[in-house]
Amino acid sequence: MSSTSNMKLFTLNSNEPLAQEISEILDVPLGKNSVVRFSDGEIQINIEESVRGADIYLIQSTSQPVNEHLMELLIMIDAMKRASAKSINVVIPYYGYARQDRKARSREPITAKLIANLLETAGASRVISLDLHAPQIQGFFDIPVDQLVGVPILAEYYNEKNLDDIVIVAPDTSGLRRVRRMANILDAPIAFIDKRRPEPGEEEETNVVGSVQGKNVILVDDMIDTAETVVQAANCLMEADVKEIYACGTHALLSEPAGAKIENSPIKELVVTNSIFLPEEKKIDKIKSLSVAPLFADALLRVQNEKSVSVLFD
Amino acid sequence: MSSTSNMKLFTLNSNEPLAQEISEILDVPLGKNSVVRFSDGEIQINIEESVRGADIYLIQSTSQPVNEHLMELLIMIDAMKRASAKSINVVIPYYGYARQDRKARSREPITAKLIANLLETAGASRVISLDLHAPQIQGFFDIPVDQLVGVPILAEYYNEKNLDDIVIVAPDTSGLRRVRRMANILDAPIAFIDKRRPEPGEEEETNVVGSVQGKNVILVDDMIDTAETVVQAANCLMEADVKEIYACGTHALLSEPAGAKIENSPIKELVVTNSIFLPEEKKIDKIKSLSVAPLFADALLRVQNEKSVSVLFD
Amino acid sequence: MSSTSNMKLFTLNSNEPLAQEISEILDVPLGKNSVVRFSDGEIQINIEESVRGADIYLIQSTSQPVNEHLMELLIMIDAMKRASAKSINVVIPYYGYARQDRKARSREPITAKLIANLLETAGASRVISLDLHAPQIQGFFDIPVDQLVGVPILAEYYNEKNLDDIVIVAPDTSGLRRVRRMANILDAPIAFIDKRRPEPGEEEETNVVGSVQGKNVILVDDMIDTAETVVQAANCLMEADVKEIYACGTHALLSEPAGAKIENSPIKELVVTNSIFLPEEKKIDKIKSLSVAPLFADALLRVQNEKSVSVLFD
Amino acid sequence: MSSTSNMKLFTLNSNEPLAQEISEILDVPLGKNSVVRFSDGEIQINIEESVRGADIYLIQSTSQPVNEHLMELLIMIDAMKRASAKSINVVIPYYGYARQDRKARSREPITAKLIANLLETAGASRVISLDLHAPQIQGFFDIPVDQLVGVPILAEYYNEKNLDDIVIVAPDTSGLRRVRRMANILDAPIAFIDKRRPEPGEEEETNVVGSVQGKNVILVDDMIDTAETVVQAANCLMEADVKEIYACGTHALLSEPAGAKIENSPIKELVVTNSIFLPEEKKIDKIKSLSVAPLFADALLRVQNEKSVSVLFD
Amino acid sequence: MSSTSNMKLFTLNSNEPLAQEISEILDVPLGKNSVVRFSDGEIQINIEESVRGADIYLIQSTSQPVNEHLMELLIMIDAMKRASAKSINVVIPYYGYARQDRKARSREPITAKLIANLLETAGASRVISLDLHAPQIQGFFDIPVDQLVGVPILAEYYNEKNLDDIVIVAPDTSGLRRVRRMANILDAPIAFIDKRRPEPGEEEETNVVGSVQGKNVILVDDMIDTAETVVQAANCLMEADVKEIYACGTHALLSEPAGAKIENSPIKELVVTNSIFLPEEKKIDKIKSLSVAPLFADALLRVQNEKSVSVLFD
Amino acid sequence: MSSTSNMKLFTLNSNEPLAQEISEILDVPLGKNSVVRFSDGEIQINIEESVRGADIYLIQSTSQPVNEHLMELLIMIDAMKRASAKSINVVIPYYGYARQDRKARSREPITAKLIANLLETAGASRVISLDLHAPQIQGFFDIPVDQLVGVPILAEYYNEKNLDDIVIVAPDTSGLRRVRRMANILDAPIAFIDKRRPEPGEEEETNVVGSVQGKNVILVDDMIDTAETVVQAANCLMEADVKEIYACGTHALLSEPAGAKIENSPIKELVVTNSIFLPEEKKIDKIKSLSVAPLFADALLRVQNEKSVSVLFD
Repeated sequence: MSSTSNMKLFTLNSNEPLAQEISEILDVPLGKNSVVRFSDGEIQINIEESVRGADIYLIQSTSQPVNEHLMELLIMIDAMKRASAKSINVVIPYYGYARQDRKARSREPITAKLIANLLETAGASRVISLDLHAPQIQGFFDIPVDQLVGVPILAEYYNEKNLDDIVIVAPDTSGLRRVRRMANILDAPIAFIDKRRPEPGEEEETNVVGSVQGKNVILVDDMIDTAETVVQAANCLMEADVKEIYACGTHALLSEPAGAKIENSPIKELVVTNSIFLPEEKKIDKIKSLSVAPLFADALLRVQNEKSVSVLFD
Repeated sequence: MSSTSNMKLFTLNSNEPLAQEISEILDVPLGKNSVVRFSDGEIQINIEESVRGADIYLIQSTSQPVNEHLMELLIMIDAMKRASAKSINVVIPYYGYARQDRKARSREPITAKLIANLLETAGASRVISLDLHAPQIQGFFDIPVDQLVGVPILAEYYNEKNLDDIVIVAPDTSGLRRVRRMANILDAPIAFIDKRRPEPGEEEETNVVGSVQGKNVILVDDMIDTAETVVQAANCLMEADVKEIYACGTHALLSEPAGAKIENSPIKELVVTNSIFLPEEKKIDKIKSLSVAPLFADALLRVQNEKSVSVLFD
Repeated sequence: MSSTSNMKLFTLNSNEPLAQEISEILDVPLGKNSVVRFSDGEIQINIEESVRGADIYLIQSTSQPVNEHLMELLIMIDAMKRASAKSINVVIPYYGYARQDRKARSREPITAKLIANLLETAGASRVISLDLHAPQIQGFFDIPVDQLVGVPILAEYYNEKNLDDIVIVAPDTSGLRRVRRMANILDAPIAFIDKRRPEPGEEEETNVVGSVQGKNVILVDDMIDTAETVVQAANCLMEADVKEIYACGTHALLSEPAGAKIENSPIKELVVTNSIFLPEEKKIDKIKSLSVAPLFADALLRVQNEKSVSVLFD
Repeated sequence: MSSTSNMKLFTLNSNEPLAQEISEILDVPLGKNSVVRFSDGEIQINIEESVRGADIYLIQSTSQPVNEHLMELLIMIDAMKRASAKSINVVIPYYGYARQDRKARSREPITAKLIANLLETAGASRVISLDLHAPQIQGFFDIPVDQLVGVPILAEYYNEKNLDDIVIVAPDTSGLRRVRRMANILDAPIAFIDKRRPEPGEEEETNVVGSVQGKNVILVDDMIDTAETVVQAANCLMEADVKEIYACGTHALLSEPAGAKIENSPIKELVVTNSIFLPEEKKIDKIKSLSVAPLFADALLRVQNEKSVSVLFD
Repeated sequence: MSSTSNMKLFTLNSNEPLAQEISEILDVPLGKNSVVRFSDGEIQINIEESVRGADIYLIQSTSQPVNEHLMELLIMIDAMKRASAKSINVVIPYYGYARQDRKARSREPITAKLIANLLETAGASRVISLDLHAPQIQGFFDIPVDQLVGVPILAEYYNEKNLDDIVIVAPDTSGLRRVRRMANILDAPIAFIDKRRPEPGEEEETNVVGSVQGKNVILVDDMIDTAETVVQAANCLMEADVKEIYACGTHALLSEPAGAKIENSPIKELVVTNSIFLPEEKKIDKIKSLSVAPLFADALLRVQNEKSVSVLFD
Repeated sequence: MSSTSNMKLFTLNSNEPLAQEISEILDVPLGKNSVVRFSDGEIQINIEESVRGADIYLIQSTSQPVNEHLMELLIMIDAMKRASAKSINVVIPYYGYARQDRKARSREPITAKLIANLLETAGASRVISLDLHAPQIQGFFDIPVDQLVGVPILAEYYNEKNLDDIVIVAPDTSGLRRVRRMANILDAPIAFIDKRRPEPGEEEETNVVGSVQGKNVILVDDMIDTAETVVQAANCLMEADVKEIYACGTHALLSEPAGAKIENSPIKELVVTNSIFLPEEKKIDKIKSLSVAPLFADALLRVQNEKSVSVLFD
């Protein structure tokens, strides 16, 4: 039974090491294609082998530089569609623009929905992603979306650490669902950091809501961007006399100056995954990266063989 | 300047009193139409005046019986489209199925998105709603959605009460954003009720996360369905020695046995709005209903006159 | 050759006995799913087995309560689509709202077309139905529609009765095509009941057009709703000195007070099918129900095995 | 009040005299455009005046040669859309392919629906037509369709004739609804011609169903194509000893050899309309043509001024 | 390995001999269907064998009479879609209206795009064509388009002729890309015929741009319509003292009076292909027709077996 | 008559000076909006004034960095759509990716079509552009496209120079239509540069086809990217003993190392337009830039006032 026989894996430029890892686990080689940029910045894509009738799995995080990576992806999907691929399964370990998922103020775009529309227009048949910022983003699509979950991987890591007397903390009022999920696995209470601005123009105040004193804290977020949120939360927690502070987040954007900030913060260790490629210069001792390649490899194999994906996270 | 000159208001069966109230504020009569049911349960709609070229505002909450009210709305939109209305502005004070906004488990529908698709397919030009369960539901649409906000109306009511030493509490881990918004207006701290199940099969435990002892509590939710959530929260708060417990929620579903539950709970007063029609038999002393008709009337007038709606809530 | 290997049958709430019968004939078990109603009337659907890559046959008549049954169907299709079904074949033995197939008056909806649009929007791949009120409804869809025909089943029943000197009668000016078809099989002449209102406000007069005196009459309609039409026709025929009156119709809506009306009418026997589930309280001696399960089972098997369905009715 | 100020009328090649007549009644000149055919048969359309922002009324019957006329129409709509017309109202006095409105046999197209899809795809905003073969064709569209009715014009003509003792007869089992409508206006009974083939291979038998003896008959059909149907009906009626036979039909296709057939038939006079252009060589004494230009002019004016069209036929 | 097992070939009326030839090469019989015209010019199509689940290859050039052939094609696609074909591959050896591929003047249609939209709306899954007038027409579609190339077939023919001292000439300023391609294969220089009108109203002047004196000229165009262009070019070349003039073009429209014009021109031989059926009366000695059946047969086999088509022309 | 009363101009980041110039000519201020980039590269757009009911003209060239500028545009369109703009007219002076307008090789995308699809999906109502690389790109859209033409502006410039004995030359085999148009205005002959590669691997040879000796040459292209093409053409022309070489192109991409190349080439002057913003560091003495602002201002005014745009170029 050759369950990967009609499957073709392709990667673009955002995260080749992850694609390579998935390819090795599945024992399916990465398809040959080139993505070059003309001198005026336009992307040119060549697919160098036939994809006619194949089930394509196209791996691309829409991480920094997000617009370049997104356009690579849309153009590649267009090329695949015109080249008569049977299905185009778009694997987006990190889905960029996910935070623009609602109109927070008047006349704002809902860019996360726009991206969904663009992907469907280009010709995507399915999306496979990980820890979407809001679960409602699945509903932005009318094609099937398989959303994988990172919390079990992160929780497993902390389980092996055997920390005692822990509390799981959300660094702001969103994301308590994620924190509750982690807390269920680790059998721990939860808390969160509340922010308010006493008067317009005055500085924002942060307060811990919940009991954290003397405990080992695990701060949980879905993405670590400038690290401002987790570091601010960590500072607030320090004033509340916690024991040690751990932090984790699935998506390691680590935009400048995240590295320095974490380095100088009371956070003991930041655990992330390789959903976004972490270049050498961003790697610091405090950051620990876990691989989501086995998770994706398993999901792709299940999708291709029409088996339930839910066992991976239910 | 007759700013309502091309405007036509219509209502269906879910909430005629609210539609009537809006009609009176705007001084625009409700259009003539009939909605009857054949003996086999099919809905028959007749529009009894020309709507050719008119800007239609169709008022219908998709409240209980939700499927009947939804089908009335879809059929009416179809009729309006075929009758050459210029625009069909669908006013949905309460948007049913909003809680089915993501795949919480495998193979679940995303019914809130399906409803959005159905409304667009039928021919809606715009949606005007109030306190959507998740703000991301705006992104389920590709037509403009104006989402009004109920918190200011509720907060205004409490402001006038002049309660001292209050804390705003979320009855579960979702909806903290709403609670934070109320807290900003009332200048108060926040807390929430956490629920966990120690072991599978054991009973769920509830805990207050945050400081509430001796305070006046305002529980804030977006919808009060069976009232299970707020009553459970109120009981948990009682054990935490709070002073008095007030509760509020924009949408008063009040499904059985909400009335009895509230009556017998430590909640002193439940404040709701008339986004959903409250029949006489559901009216009890503890329930106070505020009208959203002025808010909707203002919004409709602004939409029709192409003025910014954001002043109503920004 | 396992011709049902990729086939999955599911049923919703409208007609489980028919679905069960089809399942038994095909020897394909009904898929596991639950359809529950929340206390506020919202439908919640859970599909309790993987449908990834399967050819789904979803059996649901959109009979009374039509809006509930229709919403169940739409939500289930949405769930199936998001759960990666390969094809979603919607089996609708009775297609509700079929009589609203044109604008009979100004500003009416064309609800039968709206339903078609909703089904396609939700994600249906194909529709299999029986005796659509007007054959043009097939054209409301852009997906394939297989329309089965009930007349041969009904005719077969009368053939076995060996009635002599029969005439086939249409109870109104529509549906003569159906009557002609029945007459061809039974080798009989036809007639119809004409209705006119001499002056506005006066009572409607009915006349038999055609020769019926002394004959055995078979009244043929596609649906028996309140039975008003067939009973009125039967009374008119009685005055024309016919011998015995039989009536038949594929779809047994039998809305109140159909039972009493038929009981007290000159109709000797009413033959229907189980396209709509007939509850015990509606079963009276005069009503004889024929099963369409073998017809549907055969059709589903042919569709799944890509064989022509036309042999079933051409 | 210049109610035709933003209106532009255009005609293509099928029925310029009708368009001219409508133009004169409305006092709106026909827009300048040319429709030429290249030597290889391709249609080239030039619109020779700006249509930017205008409400276009494009008059074209899709009569013989139907495919040429239809392609002219589709190409013109495309040109209008790209030339930034505000709305493109397609006026189709005779809608060709209307008889292919259902799958009468397996694997047949539903061409009347295909045409509707093609018109919408090309960019039509609205359709205004007359006596569609089946009223369900309105539902083939998702844009507004205004369907005018020819029966009152025909009935008016017979009213002025003052025939006594008339019966309205349908030449086959379809179209009884139309016959009933005519009978209501003329206050007359109805009948129809039934056809059956005793055995496969044997000749078709025709019978009159209903009382016609000694009466003046008016045969009513929606279209007179080869005239086979009405002539066959007339012959059958002759055998039933009727007095005089009149025939009418809205759409005068009059395909060969309709002229000769009518000439040699017992039909005394055939009344039609100019929905299809009647060339000189087809004009015979027995054919009387009534103009639908006033009806269309009135309808166009009402549509442009957003007044109800229903007064024209309700 | 039966590589044509799920393949069904069908042809319509434009080019049955080519379809027959392809059928023989592939050893796949032509499917049974009839295309008849009613007396009023409407097309009626019957597919006389099941196509359920089959991969259909539908061969039809939209050549003269282009509107008839196009409508045949659209109606057939609609029938195939409703008859549950698995895929509908539309093989259009000559794509009519291709020259209307841009707005050359204001308010022109872009008919080549309209045709693409119509084909997709009707239900085409893929298009296989030959030498589209402009390669951008591929982009008019969102379904896969396989465009075959005729130059190699034509070049091969001239290669075998062993002409010496040749120059490849474009008869106007468009199509130099095609000429360059031919020149690459035949290793020859290129030139073109320039046309200008010195003053409005004066006669057009033609000039050869490039060196042609004393050489054997091969004029290359994609379609030979009235032959005006190539004959005018040939006359111009004669004045430039060339040796012999050959002309070729993939698509032989040969509209009147192409035959006489070529006969009387200095063109020694015109080479075309059978992408358009050439009736006996158009065959003259100077015209040599090459078959594209082997090319299409190979392409269809590759498409059906999901092999790359690019080897046929890269 | 305030003809710009409902018009709102907005610009994004690609070419603010051009937008400013258009704004001044029209005396319509640029709307207030901000486009910022988050630290992770995501674009955030705020529209800081109401656009409800307004006709928006959104000015943005999709020039280098093309993907950033394109995403800015798509996100802004999405925001405008959700903010209830009446129409969104997208003004794209330079349309990037236009050269990827066909599948030049197997499995290539048609990115120019993809961009058209993305713009329509986002919600564009109309496109106004200048010198699209291929005129067929208009057909990639189903919304109206107004294409302005740069040749008259460039020709006017040369007219004023009063050069004698000129020849207009295309630097390669494409774009002869543009050259012919320039030649018509300047009343001059044309020629082009042919390129061929004698053997694979050998260097490309260039030849002038046409008479250029001793003449003043004007090289005409639509875009000057790396300037490789025009400089290579200029060198080839030098060997053909021309007098002086002028070059022009509408779109000044001027990608590195265009500046140095032109500086060191035999080209005397390169004339471009400001369709793309030319930063200071790219400005060299040999480059002369003409403004297209008056042309765009005129076009926008005509579009807004529903007057024909064709007078600008016909």
